[in-house]
Formats: sequence, C-alpha cells, structure tokens
Amino acid sequence: MAAGTRKGNRGCRDRGGGGTVTDPNGRQRTYEWADPTASAAAARELDGLSFFREMIAGRIPPPPITATLGFGWVSIEPGRVVFEITPAEYHYNPIGSVHGGVYATLCDSACGCAVHSMLPAGAYYTSLDLSVRFIRQVTASTGRMLCEGKVEHLGSRTALATARLTDAGGKLYAQATSSCMIFRPGG
Amino acid sequence: MAAGTRKGNRGCRDRGGGGTVTDPNGRQRTYEWADPTASAAAARELDGLSFFREMIAGRIPPPPITATLGFGWVSIEPGRVVFEITPAEYHYNPIGSVHGGVYATLCDSACGCAVHSMLPAGAYYTSLDLSVRFIRQVTASTGRMLCEGKVEHLGSRTALATARLTDAGGKLYAQATSSCMIFRPGG
Amino acid sequence: MAAGTRKGNRGCRDRGGGGTVTDPNGRQRTYEWADPTASAAAARELDGLSFFREMIAGRIPPPPITATLGFGWVSIEPGRVVFEITPAEYHYNPIGSVHGGVYATLCDSACGCAVHSMLPAGAYYTSLDLSVRFIRQVTASTGRMLCEGKVEHLGSRTALATARLTDAGGKLYAQATSSCMIFRPGG
Amino acid sequence: MAAGTRKGNRGCRDRGGGGTVTDPNGRQRTYEWADPTASAAAARELDGLSFFREMIAGRIPPPPITATLGFGWVSIEPGRVVFEITPAEYHYNPIGSVHGGVYATLCDSACGCAVHSMLPAGAYYTSLDLSVRFIRQVTASTGRMLCEGKVEHLGSRTALATARLTDAGGKLYAQATSSCMIFRPGG
Repeated sequence: MAAGTRKGNRGCRDRGGGGTVTDPNGRQRTYEWADPTASAAAARELDGLSFFREMIAGRIPPPPITATLGFGWVSIEPGRVVFEITPAEYHYNPIGSVHGGVYATLCDSACGCAVHSMLPAGAYYTSLDLSVRFIRQVTASTGRMLCEGKVEHLGSRTALATARLTDAGGKLYAQATSSCMIFRPGG
Repeated sequence: MAAGTRKGNRGCRDRGGGGTVTDPNGRQRTYEWADPTASAAAARELDGLSFFREMIAGRIPPPPITATLGFGWVSIEPGRVVFEITPAEYHYNPIGSVHGGVYATLCDSACGCAVHSMLPAGAYYTSLDLSVRFIRQVTASTGRMLCEGKVEHLGSRTALATARLTDAGGKLYAQATSSCMIFRPGG
Repeated sequence: MAAGTRKGNRGCRDRGGGGTVTDPNGRQRTYEWADPTASAAAARELDGLSFFREMIAGRIPPPPITATLGFGWVSIEPGRVVFEITPAEYHYNPIGSVHGGVYATLCDSACGCAVHSMLPAGAYYTSLDLSVRFIRQVTASTGRMLCEGKVEHLGSRTALATARLTDAGGKLYAQATSSCMIFRPGG
Repeated sequence: MAAGTRKGNRGCRDRGGGGTVTDPNGRQRTYEWADPTASAAAARELDGLSFFREMIAGRIPPPPITATLGFGWVSIEPGRVVFEITPAEYHYNPIGSVHGGVYATLCDSACGCAVHSMLPAGAYYTSLDLSVRFIRQVTASTGRMLCEGKVEHLGSRTALATARLTDAGGKLYAQATSSCMIFRPGG
C-alpha cells in the first residue's frame, strides 16, 4: 500500500489498498483508485527513481492494482524496491490459502519496479516473463509480508531482476525471476 | 465469472467478480465474497471434477480471489479448464496497462484447476511454481479474454500443466507452465 | 547429427555425433567437428530456413556441440524443427541417468532453431532464457528420442518457442519454453 | 573438472574433460569416462556431502557428462557447490558462441549437487525443472568460468536452488533456478 494511501486508512482492519470492510461478516470490500492515465503520463516524463519517489510521496497516485490487491510501497532505491502486503481472506484460492496469483503480483511488481527505478527519463521497459517459485503457503494469519525486488543485471536492451517474498521474521515464501526488455530514447 | 457470483451482479456487463461501481468517475468498487472455509472443506471431500462442477453450478461458493480480481469459470472437463476475465481499469499497473499479476493469477488458476480436476477424492496438490510469458499488452479495450489450462502430464507425485491467455479472436497474450506436487491418499 | 552426416558414420555403434568408441569397455569416444566460423558466417548471409536446409544437406557443417553431445537434425520447416538423439552412457549424471543438461541442450536447440528458421536474411536472435520441465528419467535404454521445437509467437522484437522431448512411442520426457530477442536489419 | 580427470590432462590446452586434441586443426577430441554404475551405487550408500567429497578426492569416478562437456568440481560445502569450465570450440552453437545447453548443464549440475550435498544417506532427489537466464555470450576467449550453486530452501519434500555462472572477474553470464523433489528414507 502506498504511503499516501495508508495515511487515509488509519484504524482500518482490512489493510487492503484502502478498502473498507462494511459487511458485518467482514466479507465485503469497498475501495477506490485514481485515474491511471496520470501515472502513465508521469512515467513517460520522469526517470524511474523520481517517478516512484513522487508516488511514494503521494504526489502521483498509486496504480489501481495496488488498491485492488491491497499492497503498497515500503521503500525504493536504485535497483532495489520493497513492497508490503498483509494477506487477508479476499486473497484466498478455493483450497484455503492465499492464491498464487497474489504472490506473483507482488513479485512482478517488485521485479518490474526495480528495473524501472534504474531507467532514465524517456526509457521504458516491458516484462517478458515472470517465473515464481512457491515455497510456503501464505494464510491470513501469516501477517505482514515484504516483497523485495532487486536488479541482477541491467544491459542496454534487457534486464534481469529477482524478487523474494518473506514474512516479518525473514522466512522465504516465494522467489521469482523476471526478464525485461528495455527501450531507450533514441536507441 | 462463477455462477454464484454472477447472481449478485445482474445487469452489470463488465463486472469483475460482482463488484459494483458506485463512484461517479467509475473508480470505486464494492464487492463481496463467501467464506472460503466452505470450499476448502468441500475440496477435501470431493474429487476435483465434482468439486469444480458444484462450484460452477453455484452450490459451492467461488473463492474470494475471483471476486477480488473479477474472473470466473467458463467450463471444465477432466484436465482442461477455461476461465474468463474482462480486463478493466482496476487491473492496471502504473504504466497504463493491465498488471502482469493479473495474467499470472489467471494462468495460475487455469494450471492449478486443470490438475485438480484430475485428482480423486482425498488427493490434493500444491503448485511448485508458475512461469508466465507475457506476449502482448492487455488494456481495458482488449475485451473479454479466455484463459485455458491443460494438463500436459499427470504422474503419481507430480503434474505439469500449461495455460494460454487469449482474446475473443484467439490471439495469444500470455503462455504459462506450472509444476504441481500431488499428494494421494494413503500414498 | 544431421542425416547427411550420419551417412558417413555407418557401422558406428555409438551414434553420438560420429564419435567412435575405441576403448574395449566402450568408455572412450573420439570425435571431430568442423570450424564453426564457417556456419556463423553463413548464418549472417542466409535467411534462417535456407541456412538450416544447407546444413541438413551437408553443405554447411553442423555446429560443434552436435558432435560433442551426439545429436542432429531430423527435419525443418518454417517455425518447426525436429532433432534426434540416442542417449548413451557418455550423457550420464552421477546418479545413473542422462544429465538434465542434455535435455536442456536439445530443447534449447529446438527452440532457438525454430525461431531462427523464421528469420529473414540479415536478422539474428539471441535466447534470453530457457525453462525446462523434466518429466521422466532418460537412460541409455530409452532409445532414439525426438525433440520438436515450435514457434508459439513471433513478433518484431521477441519470439516465444516451446519444445517437447519424446521417445519413439511419443511419450513426453521434457517440455521447455524459451524467449528470444530478435534483431532485424535496419530496425 | 574433477581432480581425477585433471590428472590425465597435463599440458593439454583444451581442458575439456580430459579430452586430448590430436587433430592438427585442433578439431578432434578423444576422451574417456568411467562406469557410472559405480557412482550411482555410492550415491545410494553415502550422504550427499560425503559422496561428493569422495568424488572430488578421486575415489569415486566423476560422471560421464563432465568428461563429455569438460567441466569439473572446484569445491563443495553443505548447500553450496562450485564447478568450473573453460569454454572451447567444441561447445559452440551454429552462430559462433557457446551453446546455451552448456550454460544449462553447468547450472543444472550446480543446482542439483547443491541440493544433493544436503541430503542424508538413503535420501535422493530429482530435478523437476531448470530455468536458465542467459545474460552474456560466452566464447572460447571468455576463459575459465565458475558456476556456483546454492540451496535457497530445503524442505522435507522439495528444495529450491539457484546457480550463477561467472567469469574470472565475477561478471555474471547466466543465472538459474531449479526445483527438486526429495525422497527421504522411510518417508
């Protein structure tokens, strides 16, 4: 969850992207998101690091997916980003634990943003793939988790990033790798 | 979208998982889900195919993640399942298109459920990994998409499944593979 | 090794790339290969399909790795190639079966050459990754195997290919996917 | 390259697995390997670490694949192994550089042996998959390379390992991940 979002969300049991649980059984969410064309436009203007710093500072709205799945920024530095999520029932698969797609979303964000954080203004990237290894089951009682993305290689046309999803005690729940293609201005 | 979810959703064409947009800008969703312990319990009792057929018939509630991300069932047969999604703004990443995690969630569901559909009562599975290849960008104008999962190999202890995410015209947007570990009763 | 090469190899017990077993225990191989700069130069001149057809016809020497690991061409058409190998003891790992790297080499060749077969003269490609799923153990008694590579997607800058390694009866031993980056002349 | 193999290889320019280049053009290799049933039997008797230490000490013969592709051991400790290779022309693909299958073989060995090094006597493993990311081209002028495998997670039934292929200066040429299934005695 982005810092800016979190502020408006105090006292909310459900940490999911500013969603509010209004149902007495706790099985209803209402959440909002901002127009993503604003962030997409800013992404074209700014270098990656500035873009994400503006987002963490709340001056660029976080992307809709972070509200939908209830995750957000912890920190960013060049080539290294950290996201957080507090797994909840609305992330569940049919067999009683958090759906693998939630792990994948976190890892994809972490890998992609780590690469993006190293791109100059005018450059952009596209993820070619994501390979996620599921190591442990996540449930609503796992508590707050961190997903750290790191650039392993940054070339002129491709990049490789890895991500690790861990709990508060540092235990590893998933590991991922992703290749990105990079498009540089004038190149 | 699962039948059960669809019921609460009458008159709403795009409605990821029964969410209702009440905000005048269309940037708010309210959605509900059912207690996932019911489906998890049923999953332990039934063989995989019956389990999903009950779910498609609306007698077992769909998992929360389908409501959160707005996708659902189209069909199931042994070793082959199809899901559908209509991509919308609430699926977006910061750079103006559907987040890779949404592709991954569909593909993970398709692979996992295809394997599950071939398991007898008392057996269960766990996904060891998911490798997704992103081929084309998805946006809110892509329209309804299908994600088909297929079992490529089913052994006594492991299974391999693949998934393909396509649009209405059959164009390929993503391809995925996943290995599952299988636990059989008494084995 | 390609059919053309095999012809010069009659009477050789060990089918591996024309190697001759001269040791009384059958645990020595002597093999030769051709200067690979010739094929690399031809690869820059010809379109991919012509390049491989010349190679299969014996007018361009096969790459050294095919001699080293004892595999070769069966057929090629645009976007679809087939290699063959007869697993032997010299492919073994320390635990009594064919090393996973042999599966990977076949699959990487099949994926890469399938993509290359669709490239015009002046274009070239590089494999970004290879993901191989090992399904069954291969041993020296498995007999002749085929590895078929197929292009799943060919874009202007990237391609996706898959490969399947099967025995004579069509049983699946491995499945692979690979993303390639493509460089086109003038673009 | 295994210590035992290296002995027969003094003064040989081409370090490939003890192969001797007898052809005036340097395009012929003759090499030998040992009966792999001996090492497979020892693998069933010993714990993983002892098994590889015996192999490095030359008391268990290295597997045939190391002779075929010319690579060998540098070091082993629990959960961490290092292999070495000196890329040569006989590793080449048709387009003028080392074949991706050679990277994959090294990475598969490094991942698998790292996992095996942590298994007690009576346990064994099988690799479910290998995902290799190719970062830089390797040629015969790259010089001696190291491939380090490391266990990232060891559970009762599965393990995850990663590998990194680097040159003498530590530059990264490939990165890999592999999931293994583990079979423990009595379980």
